[in-house]
Amino acid sequence: MPAVPPSDLLAALNWRYAVKKFDATKKIPADTWAALEQCLLLSPSSYGLQPWKFFVVETPALREQLLPHSWGQRQIVDADKLVVFAVKKDVGVADADRLIARTAAVRGIPADALAGYRGMMAGSLTKTPPDAVDVWMSRQVFIALGVFLTTAAALGVDACPMEGFVPEQYDEILGLTAKGYASRVVATAGYRAADDAYAGLKKVRYELGEVVEKV
Amino acid sequence: MPAVPPSDLLAALNWRYAVKKFDATKKIPADTWAALEQCLLLSPSSYGLQPWKFFVVETPALREQLLPHSWGQRQIVDADKLVVFAVKKDVGVADADRLIARTAAVRGIPADALAGYRGMMAGSLTKTPPDAVDVWMSRQVFIALGVFLTTAAALGVDACPMEGFVPEQYDEILGLTAKGYASRVVATAGYRAADDAYAGLKKVRYELGEVVEKV
Repeated sequence: MPAVPPSDLLAALNWRYAVKKFDATKKIPADTWAALEQCLLLSPSSYGLQPWKFFVVETPALREQLLPHSWGQRQIVDADKLVVFAVKKDVGVADADRLIARTAAVRGIPADALAGYRGMMAGSLTKTPPDAVDVWMSRQVFIALGVFLTTAAALGVDACPMEGFVPEQYDEILGLTAKGYASRVVATAGYRAADDAYAGLKKVRYELGEVVEKV
Repeated sequence: MPAVPPSDLLAALNWRYAVKKFDATKKIPADTWAALEQCLLLSPSSYGLQPWKFFVVETPALREQLLPHSWGQRQIVDADKLVVFAVKKDVGVADADRLIARTAAVRGIPADALAGYRGMMAGSLTKTPPDAVDVWMSRQVFIALGVFLTTAAALGVDACPMEGFVPEQYDEILGLTAKGYASRVVATAGYRAADDAYAGLKKVRYELGEVVEKV
């Protein structure tokens, strides 16, 4: 059973903040980044559908192109990593079938043995209107963002989640639409600049009793 | 700087799964649960608005009442904890003002010093149509879910996220509507039963290259 000390986790979550200014010279070590990619891969999702793709934008010219569509926030070009969290469009029965095929392969069982599971997924995906499926799947992407921000902090990697960008422009510049995806949220990651004034500000949260209520 | 070993994090994320059968006799130690509540409190959100409340349903009769509206999934009554992740309804300028007041108090500065921050939030909240604000805020709730599932796993606490429930029934039974909240997703937490067959199944994820793409 895992047993990360609670104090280590809380220290990480208190240490993290939405970085405003990254140190553009500092790079995340390859093994640390590989671990973060694995954390993304392991993110939970409805039915295990994994209705997402995480686009890591490495091409400097693309990042420059995204900047004006990101409210000019410099993290887009200064952070070591820029991850665009995208939802798969038009998730439907074909995606259920793909997951069933993958499950059968990973577990070494016939797909037929998963007929009940497939039926449940296919039923949900069919009876839910397409717009509502997009809402549902988009929410999964934010679970992955939560996993990413938590695990990055635990590993001592700074990050800044960003919803202040123009998704349509991102989708076009990165070619996401053609690939069947749509950007939903962005996370930049790297290391805070020594002079990021935001690093020293006290974290603001409501009282626990205002946020957690027993019923 | 936090430095949880990557192998510990990955072990935790590999250990976790959506528990189908909890051991109803096993309780989460009070200090572990207190840490998880703090993790929820520390979850990141757009502008730091914290547009949520986490309802911990402790009354057994309420949990029994919720069961038929949860696709009959026994985790609702068997897990030690049942957390209903709810979004605040009608988030608007008043919420921006509340956050500004809190920020001023926590940081010991006059609210006037935060006029720019307030203006940005108020502008976003005003120019976004109410339905879109709800979509936006609801997504924040899923960030908190990601934080919760990750930190629970790291602490060796089992969990099961659940979207298979009837939100309207939850809202009514728990009195959320009257409180200005709406349920969006549920997480049960506790410890897996020794005979939960799902615990032994290989985790199914797509290949890393299918999920993380460099551009």
